[in-house]
Amino acid sequence: MQRLYWDEYTYAEIEGIIKKQPLVILPVGSVEAHGHHLPLNTDMLQPLWLAEEIAKRINALILPPIHYGWTQGLSSFPGTISISFDSLRGFVKDILSEVAKHEIRKIMVLSGHASTNHMAALRLACEDVLKEYKDLKIMLLSDYYIAYQYRGKLVPEDDSHAGIIETSRIMAIRPELVKKNYKFKKNHAGKYTVQVDYKEMVPYATFSNPEGASKELGEKLNNMILEELLKIIKENFGD
Amino acid sequence: MQRLYWDEYTYAEIEGIIKKQPLVILPVGSVEAHGHHLPLNTDMLQPLWLAEEIAKRINALILPPIHYGWTQGLSSFPGTISISFDSLRGFVKDILSEVAKHEIRKIMVLSGHASTNHMAALRLACEDVLKEYKDLKIMLLSDYYIAYQYRGKLVPEDDSHAGIIETSRIMAIRPELVKKNYKFKKNHAGKYTVQVDYKEMVPYATFSNPEGASKELGEKLNNMILEELLKIIKENFGD
Amino acid sequence: MQRLYWDEYTYAEIEGIIKKQPLVILPVGSVEAHGHHLPLNTDMLQPLWLAEEIAKRINALILPPIHYGWTQGLSSFPGTISISFDSLRGFVKDILSEVAKHEIRKIMVLSGHASTNHMAALRLACEDVLKEYKDLKIMLLSDYYIAYQYRGKLVPEDDSHAGIIETSRIMAIRPELVKKNYKFKKNHAGKYTVQVDYKEMVPYATFSNPEGASKELGEKLNNMILEELLKIIKENFGD
Amino acid sequence: MQRLYWDEYTYAEIEGIIKKQPLVILPVGSVEAHGHHLPLNTDMLQPLWLAEEIAKRINALILPPIHYGWTQGLSSFPGTISISFDSLRGFVKDILSEVAKHEIRKIMVLSGHASTNHMAALRLACEDVLKEYKDLKIMLLSDYYIAYQYRGKLVPEDDSHAGIIETSRIMAIRPELVKKNYKFKKNHAGKYTVQVDYKEMVPYATFSNPEGASKELGEKLNNMILEELLKIIKENFGD
Amino acid sequence: MQRLYWDEYTYAEIEGIIKKQPLVILPVGSVEAHGHHLPLNTDMLQPLWLAEEIAKRINALILPPIHYGWTQGLSSFPGTISISFDSLRGFVKDILSEVAKHEIRKIMVLSGHASTNHMAALRLACEDVLKEYKDLKIMLLSDYYIAYQYRGKLVPEDDSHAGIIETSRIMAIRPELVKKNYKFKKNHAGKYTVQVDYKEMVPYATFSNPEGASKELGEKLNNMILEELLKIIKENFGD
Amino acid sequence: MQRLYWDEYTYAEIEGIIKKQPLVILPVGSVEAHGHHLPLNTDMLQPLWLAEEIAKRINALILPPIHYGWTQGLSSFPGTISISFDSLRGFVKDILSEVAKHEIRKIMVLSGHASTNHMAALRLACEDVLKEYKDLKIMLLSDYYIAYQYRGKLVPEDDSHAGIIETSRIMAIRPELVKKNYKFKKNHAGKYTVQVDYKEMVPYATFSNPEGASKELGEKLNNMILEELLKIIKENFGD
Repeated sequence: MQRLYWDEYTYAEIEGIIKKQPLVILPVGSVEAHGHHLPLNTDMLQPLWLAEEIAKRINALILPPIHYGWTQGLSSFPGTISISFDSLRGFVKDILSEVAKHEIRKIMVLSGHASTNHMAALRLACEDVLKEYKDLKIMLLSDYYIAYQYRGKLVPEDDSHAGIIETSRIMAIRPELVKKNYKFKKNHAGKYTVQVDYKEMVPYATFSNPEGASKELGEKLNNMILEELLKIIKENFGD
Repeated sequence: MQRLYWDEYTYAEIEGIIKKQPLVILPVGSVEAHGHHLPLNTDMLQPLWLAEEIAKRINALILPPIHYGWTQGLSSFPGTISISFDSLRGFVKDILSEVAKHEIRKIMVLSGHASTNHMAALRLACEDVLKEYKDLKIMLLSDYYIAYQYRGKLVPEDDSHAGIIETSRIMAIRPELVKKNYKFKKNHAGKYTVQVDYKEMVPYATFSNPEGASKELGEKLNNMILEELLKIIKENFGD
Repeated sequence: MQRLYWDEYTYAEIEGIIKKQPLVILPVGSVEAHGHHLPLNTDMLQPLWLAEEIAKRINALILPPIHYGWTQGLSSFPGTISISFDSLRGFVKDILSEVAKHEIRKIMVLSGHASTNHMAALRLACEDVLKEYKDLKIMLLSDYYIAYQYRGKLVPEDDSHAGIIETSRIMAIRPELVKKNYKFKKNHAGKYTVQVDYKEMVPYATFSNPEGASKELGEKLNNMILEELLKIIKENFGD
Repeated sequence: MQRLYWDEYTYAEIEGIIKKQPLVILPVGSVEAHGHHLPLNTDMLQPLWLAEEIAKRINALILPPIHYGWTQGLSSFPGTISISFDSLRGFVKDILSEVAKHEIRKIMVLSGHASTNHMAALRLACEDVLKEYKDLKIMLLSDYYIAYQYRGKLVPEDDSHAGIIETSRIMAIRPELVKKNYKFKKNHAGKYTVQVDYKEMVPYATFSNPEGASKELGEKLNNMILEELLKIIKENFGD
Repeated sequence: MQRLYWDEYTYAEIEGIIKKQPLVILPVGSVEAHGHHLPLNTDMLQPLWLAEEIAKRINALILPPIHYGWTQGLSSFPGTISISFDSLRGFVKDILSEVAKHEIRKIMVLSGHASTNHMAALRLACEDVLKEYKDLKIMLLSDYYIAYQYRGKLVPEDDSHAGIIETSRIMAIRPELVKKNYKFKKNHAGKYTVQVDYKEMVPYATFSNPEGASKELGEKLNNMILEELLKIIKENFGD
Repeated sequence: MQRLYWDEYTYAEIEGIIKKQPLVILPVGSVEAHGHHLPLNTDMLQPLWLAEEIAKRINALILPPIHYGWTQGLSSFPGTISISFDSLRGFVKDILSEVAKHEIRKIMVLSGHASTNHMAALRLACEDVLKEYKDLKIMLLSDYYIAYQYRGKLVPEDDSHAGIIETSRIMAIRPELVKKNYKFKKNHAGKYTVQVDYKEMVPYATFSNPEGASKELGEKLNNMILEELLKIIKENFGD
């Protein structure tokens, strides 16, 4: 059986693998409330599925995932664990820096969580390392950058956190973790006002109605995102 | 099937579980060279196995693991990824702080990696949180604190990193990841001298000869450590 | 003549003004290359114009502006001055924290520069202060969040940094600073790749063609943005 | 009309100007209580006036000013905004570092505010940059280093914050911002005792009696300081 | 009389001494409660005595000592002064870095205090400097690493902080500071539980019974430790 | 014999002493070049002598001294050891914070070194602690604040580092450490220019000519400073 993960190899094996210049994927998740119907690891399951499918298809290797991310707005919901901006940035920077030191030159940081601050922490980490290693190339994205391109097409324009896309995708990946009894309510928040706790805005930690989600849609979306990602990877890093 | 991990639950489920005051286990690993015969995730596999066995037996829940640790001395070996002291401390502190905020009062941080600086980073993280939550109780250890009590009994006195205990335990947990062709050589380092790169001291990233390791010994050791851990947990946290 | 700026008053005067709970506006700019045709203070002139027009119309007061922002990607262009993420965050946090201490409860941070990292630094600063002052309300935006809503309508879909909107607006605000001889060239950058230096991507520091810009369009845009901003301020903070 | 400020130029223009090695002036102010008679921007108006007069006379360019400084002792007076030591140091360091990167070799940091901690933050920022750029020359001072040389001559020995010199100078620069009804009272503070709040010591945020201030004296002082500054600049940086 | 301390020389003298490549010793202590019978400087007196005896015998020079260390667990006992981990690390790093800059290549950091966190702070400081100066050699230890080798031989197995060894050694070094009326009580602490305050565990700040301590034993121990240290120094640094 | 130092007592003894509210003195020195004639510990010897004389006369106790300070400008002279600004500030803050926690309310920080940055680090440390302990009183000074009042009277106006005052005082305190063969040369440095290395300015690390120094003058000065200090202490802290 193919080993997909960086850390399943001995250091001597990885030395040989590095010579073939694989794409190295760092999956980043978030432990955060996703309504009454989705598990806390929702944002980890999705990039992990993608990373594994990619690693099965091309010359790529997956780093041990970072399960935790910045998700302060949901931090008052039970079970949510938000990492501070600086710790996340530092932790990711250290990983990328070590990987670059070992002569890897193609990295993709793939985050299931897409909140702006979270992504900024990841981007700053990437930038810190890129300044040191001039010939390094890093691709940084959330799979939701791609998924949300299907809004207004396959799903409503306002589909969001714990909505139809996300629910469908988890139904396709880990159906046994999805609960039936979702709850949804959304309150008005002032435009451009900064919120440090989303509890009042989304009392059930669901930002859009998941009604209409299905396993089939999830599989379709997962595959569309996978294909798009593979295409972009090829454009960026070559074959 | 029983869900053992914190993040496999929805936030609403975890809210109910927290009320039963489970022991919450944070497994910490290290991505580091363990000779020519053991995989880079050796220090993650062992505490994960223990954590899962514990969670099957008592009222406990496992947090998503931290795969990376401080392991600077081995950082020049291909594949090794060492997190800086401050990033590790900050990351762990943030996790524990959030868990404590959600009213968890029993935590065990269980690290497969036992290097002094690594453990100091974890301990400072624990202390930072304990100062804030006076009724919180944290147990912090490496399973090697227990395993090394069998030195001079089941294995030679100087058994260490990638030696007989560690090799045996991985043979019992993930036999397919263990390679046969180990290499071992150890050079003299000045007593009490501070080393920032172990490459000269241990050219193959193995600190003691693994010769004599076996799956049977591994199973025996794993179970002895498990029993000892369960006993200490009971003493510290009650039933 | 009406004094619009916070620091043109004595402390005794400001004490009285604070009692009337004005909206306090913090304008943030950036000293950065905007092509061969626009001045380095382009991103400061726009929010300053807006802030002054707002302060003339409603119960509002303008804090001394922060002329500098995070603009690392353009930092190799002569004259560009990029503040590091942490310094910017800390500086803005200190200002907001002091303003909140003086019992101000309505703040708008208005940035002419809209780059994601720059805005993340400002947002984290806002969040840090909001955690301390529970009844404080902060609105944070770039006027380009509004301006870009006119893309695909008044200007091409891809209008951007130093393009038609920006050139037109500066022609309306400070025509004497706009040069005729613009240069424009844009190269392909890998999708989602992290760039620490934009010089290769946009050799003249212009991200979209300014051809077609005019003073009239600038005045129209400035007024449309002003009206929209006044509307949102009213919704968020009341009369 | 001559453009005096760095950021009123395009990057292409500034590229040409840098080649002529101008003196670059960074004016630093403070938003702080100056009694019942002087505006909060008193410490910004003075170095700005000087900077502009200098830039009109010699080969010099003014950077966008930093309006805020460290002024903790007055921070409990309404309107005062004190930046923390570390934020101020970091912000100024970033600016100077970028300016030095663009090949500027003559810098003058000119602060209207002269408190010891404030000046220490600026000095450390300068030093951090000087260590990196060996051929860089930085002059750092408060115009009050010069102004206070006239104590015991033109004004009483103990003239200080918001006293005769400062009031006179603002009367000359922005007369409409000066109020008539000053209040003055000063209490004894223990010698060499560290004070974190000056409110008890100077209940009206005035450290010496402004009685006797006049526009004429202000103009005279401003010009004397200007002449002295021009002389020192010439000595330090040549023609 | 021989001058043993680095700072008793002029800079011109030290310049000459450095050329002979002496071993430079940095003694580190701790201001901490040592029961009712030992003074707060107990952990400083011991390494200072050793350092002086070494400097009398070999080509060595003593840096001014650091009297303070990390000792948080005892910090609630009157008189104890615990330095934070980061301050201690930074302070020691700065000293070592300057000493290495002056071309010293043999350093011994000798700490009377041996707590794990304290030693980790010192070790990280050493490592930070070693990464910069590749040909530098640093020996880091507590004299208690050696002293505790006599446990189970000259003293009971569990002899510890303020116990027989420590009391005896201070009786030999500064007898007039040792009080007769010791108090001793030790309570059970959960195995591997993290303690931030030891007061409940050891109500009199004594970790093992000092009964049986004597000046003679102290002299014997001091000399044994001295001989062992001299031997290791010779092995590590040559003659 | 009277014990003058805080750490010569047991914790139980110090508990009793604290109840009598002694003045607690923290002496701070600097390891820095003082010409060819004075030892590196010159700045430590002077405040230590003062502290001891004070503690013999009034209800006061001396904390273990900090031998190291910020002295970057002299750091290229052999033997000089300059602590970074942040480490010094953090270290002193930790000490003062612990002392205040133990209910001490009268502290004097007495530094033999008087450079502006050094004093700023100490002052910020004091301020950090004063914000926490509202009823704490801290006196911070260098004995040279007093000593320099005799300039133009007992010694020339420009007497300074390693000059007549300093040489005389060390001749009185530790005559055997003073060498005869002083060297002195001073070069012009640009007015208000920031210097990070004083080597060119003062090639022998002496800022003013020590010619004329004598033990008698030193004794006289030491006693005058002592008397002045005692007077100010009485004014600030009462009997």
